[in-house]
Amino acid sequence: MRIWKLVVCIFLSPGLLIAQTPQPVQTAPAKTAEPAPFAPELVRNLEALRDAALGSDYAYHQLAFLTENIGPRPTGSPQADAAAKYVAQTLRAAGLNAKLEEVTVPHWVRGAETAELVAWPDQTPGTKQKIVVTALGGSTATPADGLTAEVVVVNNFEELKELGKDKVSGKIVFFNEKFDVQKASAGHWDGAYDEAVQFRALGAKAAAELGAAASLVRSVGGADYRLPHTGYSAPAGIPAGAVAAEDAETIAHLARQGPVKMRLTLTPQLLPDVTGYNVVADLKGSEHPEEVVIVSGHLDSWDLGTGAIDDGAGVVIAMGAAQLMKELHLQPKRTIRVIAWMNEETGSRGGKAYAKAREAEAAQHIAAIESDLGAGHPLGFDAKVSPSAILMLKPMAKVLAPIGANIMRLSADDVGADITPLATLGVPTFGEMQDGRVYFNYHHTPADTLDKVVPRELRENVAAMAVLAFTLAELPEKLPR
Amino acid sequence: MRIWKLVVCIFLSPGLLIAQTPQPVQTAPAKTAEPAPFAPELVRNLEALRDAALGSDYAYHQLAFLTENIGPRPTGSPQADAAAKYVAQTLRAAGLNAKLEEVTVPHWVRGAETAELVAWPDQTPGTKQKIVVTALGGSTATPADGLTAEVVVVNNFEELKELGKDKVSGKIVFFNEKFDVQKASAGHWDGAYDEAVQFRALGAKAAAELGAAASLVRSVGGADYRLPHTGYSAPAGIPAGAVAAEDAETIAHLARQGPVKMRLTLTPQLLPDVTGYNVVADLKGSEHPEEVVIVSGHLDSWDLGTGAIDDGAGVVIAMGAAQLMKELHLQPKRTIRVIAWMNEETGSRGGKAYAKAREAEAAQHIAAIESDLGAGHPLGFDAKVSPSAILMLKPMAKVLAPIGANIMRLSADDVGADITPLATLGVPTFGEMQDGRVYFNYHHTPADTLDKVVPRELRENVAAMAVLAFTLAELPEKLPR
Repeated sequence: MRIWKLVVCIFLSPGLLIAQTPQPVQTAPAKTAEPAPFAPELVRNLEALRDAALGSDYAYHQLAFLTENIGPRPTGSPQADAAAKYVAQTLRAAGLNAKLEEVTVPHWVRGAETAELVAWPDQTPGTKQKIVVTALGGSTATPADGLTAEVVVVNNFEELKELGKDKVSGKIVFFNEKFDVQKASAGHWDGAYDEAVQFRALGAKAAAELGAAASLVRSVGGADYRLPHTGYSAPAGIPAGAVAAEDAETIAHLARQGPVKMRLTLTPQLLPDVTGYNVVADLKGSEHPEEVVIVSGHLDSWDLGTGAIDDGAGVVIAMGAAQLMKELHLQPKRTIRVIAWMNEETGSRGGKAYAKAREAEAAQHIAAIESDLGAGHPLGFDAKVSPSAILMLKPMAKVLAPIGANIMRLSADDVGADITPLATLGVPTFGEMQDGRVYFNYHHTPADTLDKVVPRELRENVAAMAVLAFTLAELPEKLPR
Repeated sequence: MRIWKLVVCIFLSPGLLIAQTPQPVQTAPAKTAEPAPFAPELVRNLEALRDAALGSDYAYHQLAFLTENIGPRPTGSPQADAAAKYVAQTLRAAGLNAKLEEVTVPHWVRGAETAELVAWPDQTPGTKQKIVVTALGGSTATPADGLTAEVVVVNNFEELKELGKDKVSGKIVFFNEKFDVQKASAGHWDGAYDEAVQFRALGAKAAAELGAAASLVRSVGGADYRLPHTGYSAPAGIPAGAVAAEDAETIAHLARQGPVKMRLTLTPQLLPDVTGYNVVADLKGSEHPEEVVIVSGHLDSWDLGTGAIDDGAGVVIAMGAAQLMKELHLQPKRTIRVIAWMNEETGSRGGKAYAKAREAEAAQHIAAIESDLGAGHPLGFDAKVSPSAILMLKPMAKVLAPIGANIMRLSADDVGADITPLATLGVPTFGEMQDGRVYFNYHHTPADTLDKVVPRELRENVAAMAVLAFTLAELPEKLPR
């Protein structure tokens, strides 16, 4: 999630990134303004959608198929293609007009990934210590039998800069920035993620500039179960990996005592671009079919887990929202468009291609919603919209209050990687806001699997997405920009 | 921990094992009995030991060296030998009379361990699914390039028996018994462990009897971070492994839909026996040097993690208890003997050898204490002793109450694998009782590492061990049997 922002930030200095944590700029419009009430029929329909969603496991069944029968869906893989076809076919069966739209996507594939300490203070002769490592997307390969070098531990970019070329050249730079679990637990998971992820995204480039042989980061995420967290790293021409938190501690402790040497083997490959697919499926509007409200998630996942929370959940939440409208025979006035985006994790090519092809239709895109923060209990939405749009939607909060999903937080930052190109064209965008306190424990790890999704919470997410989308498709006025 | 009980139970039928969960047989002596009060000087000394322990990180520093500088210490490894030498040397430096006692130990070494599903319902053509697996100690090897067979899912021994030879022969049997996390969280971690571990210990034998090609179990332990839990499995002549809970779910879900085939590669080796070492270090008694109170933990660990909680903690708790007595110049009347046992995890050869060599001195072993349930906050002790011994120790509870370690639970079951051979000789035995609610999340996994130990809780454990040991070494009367 949210990788796009980091990609566009690559050309900023790392120091500047620290200030990029999203901040709500305003939480409510001026006190005097009162929104127009919703028509009673709309309220009844929204309540019906909400209640039906809370009783439906349609989305969960789709998620089980995507994660267990198909499995991991990295961009460029046969599973990603199979998933696109499955989603299109399933939405067709639900009565939507679904098509696959081709997108040229990158094709990075993981190879071997092992690491071991081969020298450290008070080492028992003849022994090594295993280090749990995973390659970051964008990493280049070490030689097939690995590279061996001393590890230089730094806690931030400033410390790296202070060391300079002399002390970094030929070494493995290790960024030991800790993910702030307390911040995440206190409701600021985005802040915790943003301040740690800069090293994953930009560390390899900074290390390469000083001649490092490779770059490693402490895994960006909570939990303490010796799991590596993968993710995107700006291509830097050197191998780039992430080690588990426990290994980070060991390396840092030993390096304080004396020189530590590591053998690192990462053999990923960047293959030629291939064709992937966005799934675009319409539930045609009855009065303004040319006006579109997007509900979406991204279909590609990382390859370590099966992408249940990142972001199979987002896809099936969107599928579930549209399927329920069909099931309840609620044809919206505007078109509801389900999109399962391709390639969020390593470049958001799907989101970019869609927006580029629709530049002329931007004004007819009433809004775009994405869910890409897992499947936890929904709290509401982050909205990159005008304050008057927030006002217009205010009556909807009553429908969502019973499930606790009634927060509508105005955001100055982008709210979903795949819909950001649309936001750039002026389209109002919404990001479903889940309870993310443990999301980053599992994010981008082998443990992102179906069992992490609580069926009840997934149903609540479908309810929230359906209610917002149907509201946007039904209100007499278009959402103001 | 507690593997020894399982080993001696191997010849019982699996069904019988279900009843083996440890039960407190009595929690207090008869109401009318009142213990003799402790001498005021003893109480003062116990309080001084307790308070000094709460202010000392001696044990933590030893644990850091054992886990980070030495690393994993599987039986038969250079690290296990190095650890024995380190403990002996460190205790000598603390003023104890330490020696290494040779023990012939088994030497099982892990090899490659990979698994993948190669066929399942609605599989995307050309894809496989990775299964996280680890070999169990005692496993034999598959061919170097693996074996491929259909997976048969059973939930218990009865289901396996019902299937019979026809449906099991040539297949990979998968025991999908779930570790009862709620039971563990509610304070019954031993019960949760015992009811699941029987499949790890005896599943391969039961499967082999019906001609299975291999045996897998769902990992015995809590947590949901895609971690495999290793452990001992009675040698059955077939490969035996454990899969992560997530993979267990996937296999079970897919197998309900149709045939599931797996390729399994496990290449461990059972090498010839080697010489290992128990560390035996005495703090000589001033009045009855021939009477011995043992404080102990086991020095060998599994190889996946660094054995911080299982059981580096037990070793350093015992070391810390003795070191503090030296530091406070508290020479006990009886001898306090620190023992770091070798080979608890795969046969308890250290504990057995020690007891066998001391059969004639059993009566002079006043008591033996072991800590082998991690480093969590101590609640007190499990005691396999006579009810009158419990009564005699009652005044000690007042000293331990301020740190909450004042439970003394009479147990009909053995209370520590390494001291069970002494219990068989009639020696009263005590097991330090830690808060074990999350212990089995990490037990036998790659995540059993130093960061799981909270320094304050480790100090409390040293306090509890020191107070009990010093009491046993000082009371005017020997502990009744």
